Amino acid sequence: MTSASLRRVTTGLGDRSYDILIGSGLLDAAATWDGLPASADALIVSNTTVAPLYAQRLQAVLAARHRRVLTLSLPDGEAHKTAAVLERIYDTLLEHGCDRKTVLYALGGGVVGDMTGFAAACYMRGVPFVQVPTTLLAQVDSSVGGKTAINHPRGKNMIGAFYQPQRVVCDLDLLRSLPERELSAGLAEVIKYGPIADPVFLDWIEANIEALRARDVEALAHAVQRSCEIKSEVVGADERESGLRAILNFGHTFGHAIEAGQGYGVWLHGEAVGCGMVLAAELSARLGLCEAALVPRLVRLCEAAGLPVRAPVMPTERWLQLMRVDKKAEAGEIRFVLIDGLGRAVMRSAPDALVAEVIAAHSAPAVA
Amino acid sequence: MTSASLRRVTTGLGDRSYDILIGSGLLDAAATWDGLPASADALIVSNTTVAPLYAQRLQAVLAARHRRVLTLSLPDGEAHKTAAVLERIYDTLLEHGCDRKTVLYALGGGVVGDMTGFAAACYMRGVPFVQVPTTLLAQVDSSVGGKTAINHPRGKNMIGAFYQPQRVVCDLDLLRSLPERELSAGLAEVIKYGPIADPVFLDWIEANIEALRARDVEALAHAVQRSCEIKSEVVGADERESGLRAILNFGHTFGHAIEAGQGYGVWLHGEAVGCGMVLAAELSARLGLCEAALVPRLVRLCEAAGLPVRAPVMPTERWLQLMRVDKKAEAGEIRFVLIDGLGRAVMRSAPDALVAEVIAAHSAPAVA
Repeated sequence: MTSASLRRVTTGLGDRSYDILIGSGLLDAAATWDGLPASADALIVSNTTVAPLYAQRLQAVLAARHRRVLTLSLPDGEAHKTAAVLERIYDTLLEHGCDRKTVLYALGGGVVGDMTGFAAACYMRGVPFVQVPTTLLAQVDSSVGGKTAINHPRGKNMIGAFYQPQRVVCDLDLLRSLPERELSAGLAEVIKYGPIADPVFLDWIEANIEALRARDVEALAHAVQRSCEIKSEVVGADERESGLRAILNFGHTFGHAIEAGQGYGVWLHGEAVGCGMVLAAELSARLGLCEAALVPRLVRLCEAAGLPVRAPVMPTERWLQLMRVDKKAEAGEIRFVLIDGLGRAVMRSAPDALVAEVIAAHSAPAVA
Repeated sequence: MTSASLRRVTTGLGDRSYDILIGSGLLDAAATWDGLPASADALIVSNTTVAPLYAQRLQAVLAARHRRVLTLSLPDGEAHKTAAVLERIYDTLLEHGCDRKTVLYALGGGVVGDMTGFAAACYMRGVPFVQVPTTLLAQVDSSVGGKTAINHPRGKNMIGAFYQPQRVVCDLDLLRSLPERELSAGLAEVIKYGPIADPVFLDWIEANIEALRARDVEALAHAVQRSCEIKSEVVGADERESGLRAILNFGHTFGHAIEAGQGYGVWLHGEAVGCGMVLAAELSARLGLCEAALVPRLVRLCEAAGLPVRAPVMPTERWLQLMRVDKKAEAGEIRFVLIDGLGRAVMRSAPDALVAEVIAAHSAPAVA
């Protein structure tokens, strides 16, 4: 892995704007952390997989900035994005008498970022936090935009807050330790930005999918940068998801149903989104919004990215029921993010019968 | 009880500004609710004491605005301002498939308001809510300003959010059902506004304390209006408590220690604040910030309001330990809100030994 030059994406949220730093060797460099609040206390929130790899290095570099740097290691995985685990962050902060200037550092993937961000939003009604994403999915998607949440037994990300980090530090070197399957899951969110916003980027991903899977650092740097740019533009225009921002959920309505229906953690979030994009593209095509050719194109690209493209078999009623608790639903009507010509997304509802056909066309054959 | 003319206080928080309506007969009047979001679903959150008195009336008037009006009755009291009880609000919303346009109505005192507001801040990352305070304390203080929270075993209001309501409806008629002791507790927060911001109002309260305790509706209307005006001005200048807003916590540092030390719910919040103001005034006087005469003046007024003025006996170390987890503390140093000349408050730390003397001077003799 060669080193990549530092790239910087600044998000446009007025007085709550912040930088996303993208590059190699960022974790250990003092300059990475310059300008962040230098409070007495800091808490690194990580998980049992990531903490042994990187927590000590982060602690070492932060020791120059904070009098005390605590570390909390949470259980790894979406199944632990719960109120009970969130409570452990509060307990740790209060046990150690951390005040409301304490800075929280989220060192991990989307689950750690979402929980740490939500804890930061609520602890003493808000303390600063910094995202240090260690998965591709978190670097290109979940660490940017200020959505934080925990899951509820009845639905994913149901309890949360819009709360912006002070900075996002995407050290591409940290992706070296990422399991193959999680790299693929992250690529699903990279692919997503093509159909909804940037056909040229979609072409680029297709041309570079092998380099990305081989973790070529320049390819990763471009993928992370372009993804963060698109996400920042959309979020800057609609922070609280009154409209436009919802397009970032392309593939997520079907995807959330897969995750919830199979039990959180059985499918990775990115895997469910990849498959969900295929379903959403199919629905878009059947509604006459985009060319039918987008569907096989996405199937091929998802396969090349190492993602599953067949949905799990679930009764239609179960699918519909799971999608009705989606946050985008209004008065019980499911709202899908659909492709309205390549590079443009819209929110639409669709007849249940058509949705059922789409699901049937892309579901795995039942296990005998 | 005669009827009071409608008074309106508008808070100045830009695009999140809202009206506080103060008057008689507001609950049942359709006009009270005009202009609020008319979503399909609404949830009234109340408690087991207030719901039997008023929930049905609120439900009746809201039925004209929402397709479905649900009611949830929580256990009454500060001891129930917990994560577990908060979860019941989320459970109810999700059980009934409430979407993110659902309006929450907080019908109750400070506990119901704080929990409902926090649930509204977090449910699907934010739904609208309306405060319908049924206690004097909630009408003059907790329902205004957007502070929401739950308690943690290690400290009061440790987990929460700044989240503004759409409207605050202060129906003075609802105060008729308020127990004497809770009326007194509410008067503590009314008295508070005098020393920190308005000596003329302090004179007025002294002159009208009997009318207030007799629930004279014109006296109540003025007390609620002036309290809300002062609070709105302070909050408008400093919504997120970076400085000025902390003056609203006059009496609260000592007060929170009393509440936590005695066990939440043993002393009412307002009772603890009343006693806390006496201690904070004493500390102010001993630091030479204000005239010593303020102390007996506050003691007399609190007594006239029916409030306890002697602090419970606790070891000094316990007091200090409890006050160090106060959210205003910084790096373990306790920060007090002190009176710096009548009508003006400042934030200051003070030597532990002096704080101990102040506590000793105003603590009840130990029970033999």
